[in-house]
Amino acid sequence: MAKKIDHIGVAVESIERSLSLYTEHLGLELLGIEEVESEDVKVAFLKIGESKIELLEPLSKESAIAKFLDKKGEGIHHIALGVDSIEERIADMKQNGIRMIHEQPKKGAGGAKIAFMHPKSTGSVLYELCEKQTKGDM
Amino acid sequence: MAKKIDHIGVAVESIERSLSLYTEHLGLELLGIEEVESEDVKVAFLKIGESKIELLEPLSKESAIAKFLDKKGEGIHHIALGVDSIEERIADMKQNGIRMIHEQPKKGAGGAKIAFMHPKSTGSVLYELCEKQTKGDM
Repeated sequence: MAKKIDHIGVAVESIERSLSLYTEHLGLELLGIEEVESEDVKVAFLKIGESKIELLEPLSKESAIAKFLDKKGEGIHHIALGVDSIEERIADMKQNGIRMIHEQPKKGAGGAKIAFMHPKSTGSVLYELCEKQTKGDM
Repeated sequence: MAKKIDHIGVAVESIERSLSLYTEHLGLELLGIEEVESEDVKVAFLKIGESKIELLEPLSKESAIAKFLDKKGEGIHHIALGVDSIEERIADMKQNGIRMIHEQPKKGAGGAKIAFMHPKSTGSVLYELCEKQTKGDM
């Protein structure tokens, strides 16, 4: 059902200051930087094998990422698992007593359909289910 | 240089209680369970695409994972990046001012050579460099 690790979301104070670790020292390719207005974040995608590392920088103090940084500091924010048929996956989870933060998929970066699982049901790991619309999506 | 996400290490109180989320609800294949005596942990490997999720359960109160659980509770512990020529990667990092917890590789689960980067140099993400000895390694 979960086919791959689509991406690992990492909260950072500044993409600009964080990027050299990933591009220069770990040798990863920067796929792009975009602003996701609905989440009030700037996002940088770095390719690593079939997965990506997604650096998340808040664009305002109201952003969920700004609140995460205030509370916990920089670090891993979430793990996104690539799935097909996200609506069916959500229905399966609910039927099996797994709590979802989003019971309907919402739109994420790169046009993906996404839904977060509730950390209470996952041993405190923030897992995102993530369905890409086309194979070419970042 | 970093070729793929080799695995994501997740600290859990009990592999037995955590496993159904991964096998039944996320549909991942359990590759195996082993005890790593040098780290005082029991480890379960679950296959997801080219990567793995590694559940880490402490075998004693002295285990680093027991201390992590005491301090932070269950959740993501580290991200392992698959590399070749780990000795050269460590030398490059040091030359570039990136701090390493292990300046010499040590032996990890499945016979891999591993070295942790210092979170002070990585925006508080605990990255492990991980070189597999043969392609067949878990």
